[in-house]
Amino acid sequence: MNIRMIFNTLGKTSFALAGLLLLPMITSIITQDGCVWAFAITIGIALAIGIALMLIFKPRHTAIFSREGFVMVSLVWLYFSLVGALPFVISGAIPHYIDAFFETVSGFTTTGASILAGAQIEGMAKGLLFWRSFTHWIGGMGIIVFVMVFATGSQDRSIYILRAEMPGPTVDKLVPRAKDTAKMLYLIYTGMTALLVALLLLGGMPFFDSLLHAVGTAGTGGFGIKADSIASYTPFCQWVITIFMFLFGVNFNVYCLIALRRFKAAFSSQEVLIYFGITVITVGSVTANIFGMFPYTQNFGDALRLASFQTISFLTTTGYTTIPSYTNINFWPELTRTLLLLMMFIGSCAGSTAGGLKVSRVGMLACAVKKEMRRLLRPRSANVVKFEGKVVTNEALQSVSSYYIVYSLITVVVFLLLCFDPNPELDFISKISSTAACFNNIGPAYGEVVGGYFVYSYFSKVVLSIAMLLGRLEIFPLLMLFNPSTWKKQ
Amino acid sequence: MNIRMIFNTLGKTSFALAGLLLLPMITSIITQDGCVWAFAITIGIALAIGIALMLIFKPRHTAIFSREGFVMVSLVWLYFSLVGALPFVISGAIPHYIDAFFETVSGFTTTGASILAGAQIEGMAKGLLFWRSFTHWIGGMGIIVFVMVFATGSQDRSIYILRAEMPGPTVDKLVPRAKDTAKMLYLIYTGMTALLVALLLLGGMPFFDSLLHAVGTAGTGGFGIKADSIASYTPFCQWVITIFMFLFGVNFNVYCLIALRRFKAAFSSQEVLIYFGITVITVGSVTANIFGMFPYTQNFGDALRLASFQTISFLTTTGYTTIPSYTNINFWPELTRTLLLLMMFIGSCAGSTAGGLKVSRVGMLACAVKKEMRRLLRPRSANVVKFEGKVVTNEALQSVSSYYIVYSLITVVVFLLLCFDPNPELDFISKISSTAACFNNIGPAYGEVVGGYFVYSYFSKVVLSIAMLLGRLEIFPLLMLFNPSTWKKQ
Repeated sequence: MNIRMIFNTLGKTSFALAGLLLLPMITSIITQDGCVWAFAITIGIALAIGIALMLIFKPRHTAIFSREGFVMVSLVWLYFSLVGALPFVISGAIPHYIDAFFETVSGFTTTGASILAGAQIEGMAKGLLFWRSFTHWIGGMGIIVFVMVFATGSQDRSIYILRAEMPGPTVDKLVPRAKDTAKMLYLIYTGMTALLVALLLLGGMPFFDSLLHAVGTAGTGGFGIKADSIASYTPFCQWVITIFMFLFGVNFNVYCLIALRRFKAAFSSQEVLIYFGITVITVGSVTANIFGMFPYTQNFGDALRLASFQTISFLTTTGYTTIPSYTNINFWPELTRTLLLLMMFIGSCAGSTAGGLKVSRVGMLACAVKKEMRRLLRPRSANVVKFEGKVVTNEALQSVSSYYIVYSLITVVVFLLLCFDPNPELDFISKISSTAACFNNIGPAYGEVVGGYFVYSYFSKVVLSIAMLLGRLEIFPLLMLFNPSTWKKQ
Repeated sequence: MNIRMIFNTLGKTSFALAGLLLLPMITSIITQDGCVWAFAITIGIALAIGIALMLIFKPRHTAIFSREGFVMVSLVWLYFSLVGALPFVISGAIPHYIDAFFETVSGFTTTGASILAGAQIEGMAKGLLFWRSFTHWIGGMGIIVFVMVFATGSQDRSIYILRAEMPGPTVDKLVPRAKDTAKMLYLIYTGMTALLVALLLLGGMPFFDSLLHAVGTAGTGGFGIKADSIASYTPFCQWVITIFMFLFGVNFNVYCLIALRRFKAAFSSQEVLIYFGITVITVGSVTANIFGMFPYTQNFGDALRLASFQTISFLTTTGYTTIPSYTNINFWPELTRTLLLLMMFIGSCAGSTAGGLKVSRVGMLACAVKKEMRRLLRPRSANVVKFEGKVVTNEALQSVSSYYIVYSLITVVVFLLLCFDPNPELDFISKISSTAACFNNIGPAYGEVVGGYFVYSYFSKVVLSIAMLLGRLEIFPLLMLFNPSTWKKQ
């Protein structure tokens, strides 16, 4: 274990964090919201830690392997959340550190679960609001980009970090060098975000709102800046966000392939096809279910808009809502709520900014079942299953199955830990949906939690913060931090 | 596909069913409950169908393979439930056929979920009560015993049926011939049931009650004959049933090994050890949680008795309860209820009469995760995991993982189908616990269903009946009935 290299890199990323914090500080200066000092102090702390880490940990060699990659990514995410929470505490906007930590983890993991009530959000300083949403954007593409730019390992080895980090089970080596891939992804991501800002401005949304909702959509995060999320914006803006949530849920490999003019490969992705199919079927069911049921779904267009927005918001694990503020998701029919809960677990494509199991994993799980049924029927026949046009290896099936086992186990454990919460108002549906919403990085939950996560105890908030990190980091990298054999010298 | 052989065997088992129905008919004659005709007519129908099937389907050859085994077992179970429901309808005790079918499926699958209210059960004719509980006993050991006695395939092939039938992932070839194994299991099962009857009589329980509770415990079924299940019997009887529920949840291979005097092998079962561990930890937690909370758990002995009974009842998927009738499981603390819900999914040992995932599968799933974590940390190292002292093959891991994937998928689908139920009283917890209780063959559920399954629509009852059959038959045999390629000629 190259511990020196890990902490040295962590020091470098601390400078990046300081740099990122300049943006909300500038916002604070422009809007004169009184939070400049909160950011300045935090930047100072980040720089000090960065210098300290780089002075203490001077790497003797730069070789890094899988293990180092996993540990580095987990530590960076944890570190960014721990320090990124400080502006909220220093400014007094969120007095308790655990609350601020929860909010920041929720941001960097692109979850969008908030401990703030609607009125608190609307009254928050602009700089803090910007920082809060901006963490989604940073988290969405992955702190990996920073790690990669600063990591000095050879190109072959930096792919290890990418593997530990990139959402989804597979990372195609689209271009030979990992750094180039990262840069291309980064450009596409920024370009799409800019386009979204432009479209929202066109739809009449103010600039500040457009910017914050664009970065929140890009990261499939979901922190809103109004008590009613997106409900009070124009239908045009709602449709634009719906479409972009869907687009940010597509495997970014597809966009890379388009950029590389490999159109045939881009448009033959089985995963994207299934993702599209799931979306259409669910939107159809939800529309049929809510059409005519509420004052705001009396005509078909409105029902379709509401249903599309909510379905895609949950499927892409974003978490925005357009349900009018005089009602909420708890009033929607149970069938729809259950379908949406299911969408939370499925998530979107691997290699997107979304959380959840991912469509490709669900596809692989189906392959595993198909293979087993064939084996039972004809034990001695050749038994080959294909996905995305390739033969699925036993190792890949086992890898995905194991992921699914741990994934469902963690869901149960988090739910069980929430059962210790002393708040008697929190019922079964509140807790199970909070578990799903945090672990799959969606954000909003049902029941008592519909107004915000402030209903939970500090213990539960820590549990949910860990769940968000586990979900975002695809479980294993974070679990490995706690596995003694990871830290053994080799 | 040897369809002639399958339906010929089904004809033979129909005679067995007729023979089994003689016992409740004799009970009806002795107790003069007026249901003699209901049984006589059903016996006539079973005989007629048996003769018809044997005349129509004369096998050209007796070769049977996995596929035939799966199909045969599924059909026998379904057929027994369809015909076994008739006495309830003919006698008028359960007027609607779907209700009677639900009750009979619940019996043969050793679930113990009832559509009857407490008062209806207490007022039921003795012969019907006997038949209702006796189906547990038949189902518990498996209709397999009958299939095996009547199947004329060679010994090597009858192991296929055993494999399709025996609860749990592995069937050790303890003695060379499958028929001998079946006879030994049958003897142990009958012996233990007789011992339980004797002990209950000793504890002051009337003979009829002792007999019915003994067969219900042996099959880990759970149909009671009182509105308050086991609550009004003496603490001695409650403890006896607790211990025997636990014993019937142990892998019957262990008892076979003891009978064969292979004590060392018998007492080194890792599965039984884990099963014991889970039981002790859960009983401890539940006892701590409910001690002093209710009038009936004011002293430690009572709390321990209640906690042991309820935990083991759910873990072994039996479903009896000793909670006094002026309260119910809904009043127990949420932590305990969630733990117990979890126990429903785990179930007991493979090769026992219990339902659920089974401890050995849970152990295998843990092996899969262990292997994956090792692979991620050290991709090139040798990676061998062991369970029950043997190296776990990749094929075995994949088989169990696939089972788990389908298992969780069916849980979700059944729950979703229950969401269509028009009864507005049925909330999330009612539906999820009904799903768990039926699919894992436990019986009692939480929430609105605590009084019985009569709260559901007929559609939901059919869904839950299928869930019970899927759970009892370990999913794949039943699924194969609906797979067109099963029926292809080879």
